[in-house]
Amino acid sequence: MHAIHSKIGSAWRIGVTGPPGAGKSSLIDCLLGHLREKNFKVGIIAIDPSSPFTGGAVLGDRIRMQKHSVDSGVFIRSVGTRGSHGGLSRSAYRIAGLYDAAGYDYVILETVGVGQTELDVIKIADTTIVVLVPESGDAIQTMKAGLMEIADIFVVNKSDRPGAEDAVNNLRALVDISAKTGGWKQPVVLTNSINGSGIDELFKCLEEHRRYLNKTGKDNENRKILKREELMDLIQDSIKSRIEKVLRSKSMSKILQEVEEGKKSPYQVVKKILSKI
Amino acid sequence: MHAIHSKIGSAWRIGVTGPPGAGKSSLIDCLLGHLREKNFKVGIIAIDPSSPFTGGAVLGDRIRMQKHSVDSGVFIRSVGTRGSHGGLSRSAYRIAGLYDAAGYDYVILETVGVGQTELDVIKIADTTIVVLVPESGDAIQTMKAGLMEIADIFVVNKSDRPGAEDAVNNLRALVDISAKTGGWKQPVVLTNSINGSGIDELFKCLEEHRRYLNKTGKDNENRKILKREELMDLIQDSIKSRIEKVLRSKSMSKILQEVEEGKKSPYQVVKKILSKI
Repeated sequence: MHAIHSKIGSAWRIGVTGPPGAGKSSLIDCLLGHLREKNFKVGIIAIDPSSPFTGGAVLGDRIRMQKHSVDSGVFIRSVGTRGSHGGLSRSAYRIAGLYDAAGYDYVILETVGVGQTELDVIKIADTTIVVLVPESGDAIQTMKAGLMEIADIFVVNKSDRPGAEDAVNNLRALVDISAKTGGWKQPVVLTNSINGSGIDELFKCLEEHRRYLNKTGKDNENRKILKREELMDLIQDSIKSRIEKVLRSKSMSKILQEVEEGKKSPYQVVKKILSKI
Repeated sequence: MHAIHSKIGSAWRIGVTGPPGAGKSSLIDCLLGHLREKNFKVGIIAIDPSSPFTGGAVLGDRIRMQKHSVDSGVFIRSVGTRGSHGGLSRSAYRIAGLYDAAGYDYVILETVGVGQTELDVIKIADTTIVVLVPESGDAIQTMKAGLMEIADIFVVNKSDRPGAEDAVNNLRALVDISAKTGGWKQPVVLTNSINGSGIDELFKCLEEHRRYLNKTGKDNENRKILKREELMDLIQDSIKSRIEKVLRSKSMSKILQEVEEGKKSPYQVVKKILSKI
């Protein structure tokens, strides 16, 4: 990562999130086709849920985006959510950096759900697309899931389903209420992944958002924060491994056992352990 | 927390998770009524999504479980998901400990979504109820969300909706395939939060799961792990605040700026910073 550091910075990172079943994969498939038509190279990072017990990716072996699998301009990498807090966004950040340094024009981050982990991953995106379906629920559900603040572009997918137009209108009304004066006003795009309708418009919105961030310098602000976090992560990783080493030592294992068995409170022993690090 | 440490250990922690809109709140409301009829004291920890920008809870002000709000045997605490990795499960763990020490018989943890953060929180529960609705999707979607491995009890809520019986049968088939021999086989309960049907059976399943964990000693195993993690968290917190102090120092702020501006890679400066901590 250090060696490629100076080559990172030109790829645009697109995050795609939304509730399970909203058709994110098929939408990305369409967007990918559109980007490839324009000869852009695209790297995909697919965030799959991990088994909480084995730690492996539950969907790591599923076949994604078959029609692009032999296209040398497309690279797809699946990452499990693991148990490690924040570890996922770190992996995704590094993979995005690799794509970037390797000359990919776009990096697409696909998440499965809309939980906090997914939102953490989405933070590394320059533009975030929130995909909903007509039956995704009302405005309150959208706010409940924290999507209003994370979205740069809303997509109502599966435009052939009943209530699609209503969903678009409701979202637009919600955007009208919540958008800040002078700030970015989230466009709402109606798409259909089966016939590809709306993908042109989605790409136009992506370009518009990119221009907006360039103009206001907000893309650089975000990237500065990410670099600072990367540094913090590196420091913490290195210290964590020292802590674990100390905890594995003989004198510590007795204390640890007493804590596990409830004989001592963790608060009681923390100072003693710190003195040994 | 240190002072109440010896008083913690008798409350049973129930986690309730499932996709948004599955009716978790209304189900908990019913379960709460059932537990109160039996004169159990119940503490609720409601995990609300935080605004990624303000850090505050999005739903912190919503009115929850109105009919229990004047009942002295019920305490409801809303917690925002914040940005801090793992911080949420830590807060929830501490609040559960407070309820426990204060003599509450049950602690119910309610999450909004089914993301990794929610799964992390749910880990502190002794028994996890996964709430689905007939239209929650097929078995694949359930596995996609990682719910198969997290659930101790499945609830198909909104039994009046079409497809409810089918959903129950599909889930039971899925449980039959995935349950380990001799292990816990997740029951699937059909409920209706409007008329309260199925809540009796749900409570019976809860008791049965509790007996199972007691008998196998698995409840203690889980609690040992949690105590160990609590200790690790305390150590890391204390070290983190030291790191932040060093990073705020004058000599470091220049290095930090160079990293933010991409002049130096984080990998290049991490050793230098570590030497100062």
